[in-house]
Amino acid sequence: MIVNADNLIATVQRMADEDAIERVLYTYAFHLDAAEPQGMLPLFTEDLYVSYGNHGASGAEAYLHTLANPDTGIAAFFAGTSHHVSNVVIDFVDENTANVRSVLLAWHKYNRERPNGIVYGRYHDVFVRTDEGWKITRREQQTAGTDNYHARPEKMLMIDRSSREQSGE
Amino acid sequence: MIVNADNLIATVQRMADEDAIERVLYTYAFHLDAAEPQGMLPLFTEDLYVSYGNHGASGAEAYLHTLANPDTGIAAFFAGTSHHVSNVVIDFVDENTANVRSVLLAWHKYNRERPNGIVYGRYHDVFVRTDEGWKITRREQQTAGTDNYHARPEKMLMIDRSSREQSGE
Amino acid sequence: MIVNADNLIATVQRMADEDAIERVLYTYAFHLDAAEPQGMLPLFTEDLYVSYGNHGASGAEAYLHTLANPDTGIAAFFAGTSHHVSNVVIDFVDENTANVRSVLLAWHKYNRERPNGIVYGRYHDVFVRTDEGWKITRREQQTAGTDNYHARPEKMLMIDRSSREQSGE
Repeated sequence: MIVNADNLIATVQRMADEDAIERVLYTYAFHLDAAEPQGMLPLFTEDLYVSYGNHGASGAEAYLHTLANPDTGIAAFFAGTSHHVSNVVIDFVDENTANVRSVLLAWHKYNRERPNGIVYGRYHDVFVRTDEGWKITRREQQTAGTDNYHARPEKMLMIDRSSREQSGE
Repeated sequence: MIVNADNLIATVQRMADEDAIERVLYTYAFHLDAAEPQGMLPLFTEDLYVSYGNHGASGAEAYLHTLANPDTGIAAFFAGTSHHVSNVVIDFVDENTANVRSVLLAWHKYNRERPNGIVYGRYHDVFVRTDEGWKITRREQQTAGTDNYHARPEKMLMIDRSSREQSGE
Repeated sequence: MIVNADNLIATVQRMADEDAIERVLYTYAFHLDAAEPQGMLPLFTEDLYVSYGNHGASGAEAYLHTLANPDTGIAAFFAGTSHHVSNVVIDFVDENTANVRSVLLAWHKYNRERPNGIVYGRYHDVFVRTDEGWKITRREQQTAGTDNYHARPEKMLMIDRSSREQSGE
């Protein structure tokens, strides 16, 4: 595109929105790796829908339960994690909604004795602009594959390698 | 740099170009990981030159043959891949040409029974602005190293660790 | 945020600063992976402070000694490295100072015979604007965990998974 006086403010607005959306992606990873579910909730809308294939959540309360559950939550299961998010591609549907795709490498150290596990995959998110800034209203995690991860591929939503189009694309 | 009324439009133009170039890098990875060679071709100019050390291609037709070959192409060789592109540095040579450097972690699951392989390396690209947007006209993949990857280092273009300057720098 | 004629130049200035800061992060990784300590020094202020937990440096001369030492420096210890930096979050303290957080995956091939080692962690940096551009004046590396890395966790600064706030946040 060619930037000129007519589209200047709209172009910079789009870039500021992209910056804000990326920051949400990275802040999510930050709080997840710090095992702080309470810090993750404000990044989502109240009516969020999150799907990881073998599990998920509808609504903030259910999602917090998934993340913070003393038996199966982040801190209960993992001694440490590291979420590396890259390849962020943002498509605005309208000025208050965006489809966002990113690539994830998620390393996990377990509390129990077993090799560290890695998930290679993608987030397909829908973001909406709210009075408190951009938030995730829908997140689907698709998996390319794993190394030594506890969840088996058939329990995950695997990336389709034959179709021409992907959800979120 | 200090942004002011005189350089404002040129600064935003450069940022818009950077956004567009990054998007090409990530769209390449997206279609590669989906095993869709047809989606990768529009990201390159017709006269592309691609080098991975032990193999490469000159021109779109040869490149498509490399990617889509039923015996040795992406889908023939790999059951899944995940390409993580980061550390993107863009140097504009002129307003229609840019040298672009990025860092790659490429995970590969093989169709045959063997451990998953990882390549750690870099893309050194030359981008040109076309009527259809920014495209890659030259891509050289340099390799820092591998874990369990099938290709041996002597068949790859290894990153030079002694010289002061690197190609594309 | 809403971009308008009043905040336009300040918004673009902030984005240009963010671009420049990210470029320093990636240039650091580039020269580190090329085993070129001399190329890393200009990215830091003279009075730099760097901490990796089990070792560190105060001042440019001490840091160069750490990096270039023929017995324990980068080239002495590693046959190759690959530093993947993502999840960059920048908070401006004032127009000439920024707290910068990023996520790191650092792969290492050793000169001696042992498995390749990976560090998963974060950089918490303080950047300052100088006459020669943005530079790092303070860098602390926090570690989420490792795979086959030679340094033991108790020698590293591990990411706190219980506290609500992290340094640099």
